[in-house]
Amino acid sequence: MSSNLGTTGAPARRRNPATPKPARHPAEAVRAELAACEAKLLSLLDSREALIAEVCHYLIDGAGKRLRPLFVLLVYRACGGTDRTLEDAIDTAVAIELIHSATLLHDDIIDGGTLRRGRPSALSRYGASLTLIAGDYLFCRAFELCGRFEESLVRTAAQACIQLTEGEVMEGRLRHNSAATVSEYLAIIRRKTASLFAAGARVAAHLAGADQSAIAAAEKLGDTVGIAFQMIDDLLDILGPEEKIGKPVGSDIRLGIPSLPVVLAAEKDAHFRHLFTNGGNPGEADLEKLLAAVRQPDLIAQVRAMAEREATRARQVTAGLAPSVYRDGLARLIDIQTNRKA
Amino acid sequence: MSSNLGTTGAPARRRNPATPKPARHPAEAVRAELAACEAKLLSLLDSREALIAEVCHYLIDGAGKRLRPLFVLLVYRACGGTDRTLEDAIDTAVAIELIHSATLLHDDIIDGGTLRRGRPSALSRYGASLTLIAGDYLFCRAFELCGRFEESLVRTAAQACIQLTEGEVMEGRLRHNSAATVSEYLAIIRRKTASLFAAGARVAAHLAGADQSAIAAAEKLGDTVGIAFQMIDDLLDILGPEEKIGKPVGSDIRLGIPSLPVVLAAEKDAHFRHLFTNGGNPGEADLEKLLAAVRQPDLIAQVRAMAEREATRARQVTAGLAPSVYRDGLARLIDIQTNRKA
Repeated sequence: MSSNLGTTGAPARRRNPATPKPARHPAEAVRAELAACEAKLLSLLDSREALIAEVCHYLIDGAGKRLRPLFVLLVYRACGGTDRTLEDAIDTAVAIELIHSATLLHDDIIDGGTLRRGRPSALSRYGASLTLIAGDYLFCRAFELCGRFEESLVRTAAQACIQLTEGEVMEGRLRHNSAATVSEYLAIIRRKTASLFAAGARVAAHLAGADQSAIAAAEKLGDTVGIAFQMIDDLLDILGPEEKIGKPVGSDIRLGIPSLPVVLAAEKDAHFRHLFTNGGNPGEADLEKLLAAVRQPDLIAQVRAMAEREATRARQVTAGLAPSVYRDGLARLIDIQTNRKA
Repeated sequence: MSSNLGTTGAPARRRNPATPKPARHPAEAVRAELAACEAKLLSLLDSREALIAEVCHYLIDGAGKRLRPLFVLLVYRACGGTDRTLEDAIDTAVAIELIHSATLLHDDIIDGGTLRRGRPSALSRYGASLTLIAGDYLFCRAFELCGRFEESLVRTAAQACIQLTEGEVMEGRLRHNSAATVSEYLAIIRRKTASLFAAGARVAAHLAGADQSAIAAAEKLGDTVGIAFQMIDDLLDILGPEEKIGKPVGSDIRLGIPSLPVVLAAEKDAHFRHLFTNGGNPGEADLEKLLAAVRQPDLIAQVRAMAEREATRARQVTAGLAPSVYRDGLARLIDIQTNRKA
C-alpha cells in the first residue's frame, strides 16, 4: 500500500481534428500554480548540508506526479480562491508534498524498500541514517512553511501527520494477519493516505474563503478521493507491470501488508489465509499462488467497484461546487485516478 | 555526543542548621510550572495507537531530567513572564521536550544505541520501525502544540529542528575523521544541541514580553548554555561511570563521533589519530588506548576550561537580567551543569 498514486502529468497527445475534443487534463487548469509550487518545492530542499539536499533532490526532482499539489490547487480554485491568497494555497500544496515525501523516505526504511519511482530508493542509495534524517528535514520544512498560517490550519496539518503515523503503526500491527477486515483496511488507509488529501482540501477551502459547510465538504472530498486512489493503487500493486508502477509487482503481499485485494481474498479463501500468514514473507512459489488468487477477475472487479463507490461520493461533492474549469478538473481527476490501469 | 545532559531533579537533602544555607536547586523556583509541564507532556503521548503511546511513555515517563523545560521556564520567568501567558510558556517547554525526545529516538536508530537512560533503548525494545514512527509522532505533537503561536515562533521552532537534522548529518560526515577541527565540532553541537536551547529561550523571552535586545540576549544565553552542557556531556561520556551516564562509557569513541575530547586529543597525538580512523569502530584493545589518551588530566582540564568559557558568557547574560529568584536559578543551573561530574 504505497502512496504512489499514478500519473497526473498532462501528456502531450496529438489530436485528430475529426474526433471529439478530449477532456482537458486537470493539470492544465492550474498550470501556472503548479509551476510556482514546483519552483518553491525544489527551492526548499536546499539545506546547508549538501547531503541532505542531495537525498531530497534525488527523491523529488523530476519524479513523483505532484498529485497532492494538483488536488489542493484545484480545490482552492474550485472553491473560489483568488490570486490574493494564492501564495498561501501554493504553500499549502508545497507543504503537503513535503510531508508526503518525508513519509516516502521513512516508509522505505520501515519496509526495506529498494525500488521507488522506478529506480533505487533513497534508502538503498544513501542508507538508513541519511534517509531517516532527510525525512525529518522535509517534515520540518513543511512546518516551517505552515508557520504563517493561523492556528487551525497548522493544527489541521499536524493532526494529519499524527494520523499518518497512527496508520503506519496500525498497518504494522496487521501485517501477515489474514483476519484483517475491510473496516480495518479502511481505517488504515484513511489515516495513511486520505488524511493528507483531506487536510490539504480543508486548508485550501479555508484559504479560498469558503464557508464552514463548504470547508467540511472539501474535507469529505479529500477523504473519498484519497481512499479511492489508494484502493486503485493496491490493485496496481498486484497487476503491475513493474516498469509502470516503479516497484516490484506484489510488493504488498511480499511484505504481508493487508491491502484491499488481500483482505478480500482472505475473506473467502482458507488456503489464501494459510499461505499469507504462514511464517513471515512468502517464498517465490507461494507468492505466485497468492498473486494468482488476488488476480481473479471477480476480485479485481470487486476492488474497482469499491473504489468507484468512493469516487461517486467524491463526484457528489464536486457536483455541489459552482461550475468552473477547476470543478471540471476535479471531476476529471477523479475519473482518471479511478480508472487508471497503471 | 548524546544530549543526555545530567541531573536537574532537586535532591531531597538533609541540612545541618549550623552550616550556611545551600543554594536552592533551580527547579524549586518553577516547581508548579514544571509540574504543569510534566502533566501536559505525558498527556500528549497518548496516541489512539496503543503501541505509539507505549514507546513514547517508555522513553519519557519518569526518565529524563527535563533540563530543557526547566531552562525555558526559568528564562520565561526571569524575563518577567507573568501568569497571564504562562500557558504559552508551558506549551513551549513541552514542545521543546517533545522535539528533544523525538531526536533521542531517531538518534538511537542512527547510532544503533541499545542503552538509553540506563536501560534498554526503545530501539532495542521495540525495533527500528516503531521507534522511527514514534519519533515522527512526537515531532508532529510538538508542531501541533506550536500551532497557536504566531508565525515567528513556529518558524523559530521549525528552524531549530532543521538545524538538528543538519547537525546530525554534519556529525555523520565527520565520523572516524581525526582531522575534525574544534570549529567544526562547535558547528555540530551548535546545531545538534544548542539550537533547541536557543530557540526555547528566544520563544520564552518573546512570550514574556521582552524587547528585541532582551530576546536576542536570551537566545545567546540558550546558545552558550547548550554548548557548555554538551561539552561537559562529551567529557562524561569518556569518564563515566556507566550507571551514572546511563550508557556504556566511551560510546562516542566507539561510534567514531568527533566529540570534544576526541578532537583535542587528535590535534596533538598522531597515534591517537591513527587508532581513531583505523577502519571503522575500534576493537576493545584500541578503545582502551583511545580512552586512556582522552583521559589525560590536561586534556580533561582543557575541556572543562572551554565549557567554563561558554558558562562565563552565559553568566554575563544572566547578570544583565533584573534580579529575581529565577535569574538566580539560571545562574545556579549554569554552575551545576558546568561542574557536574556525572
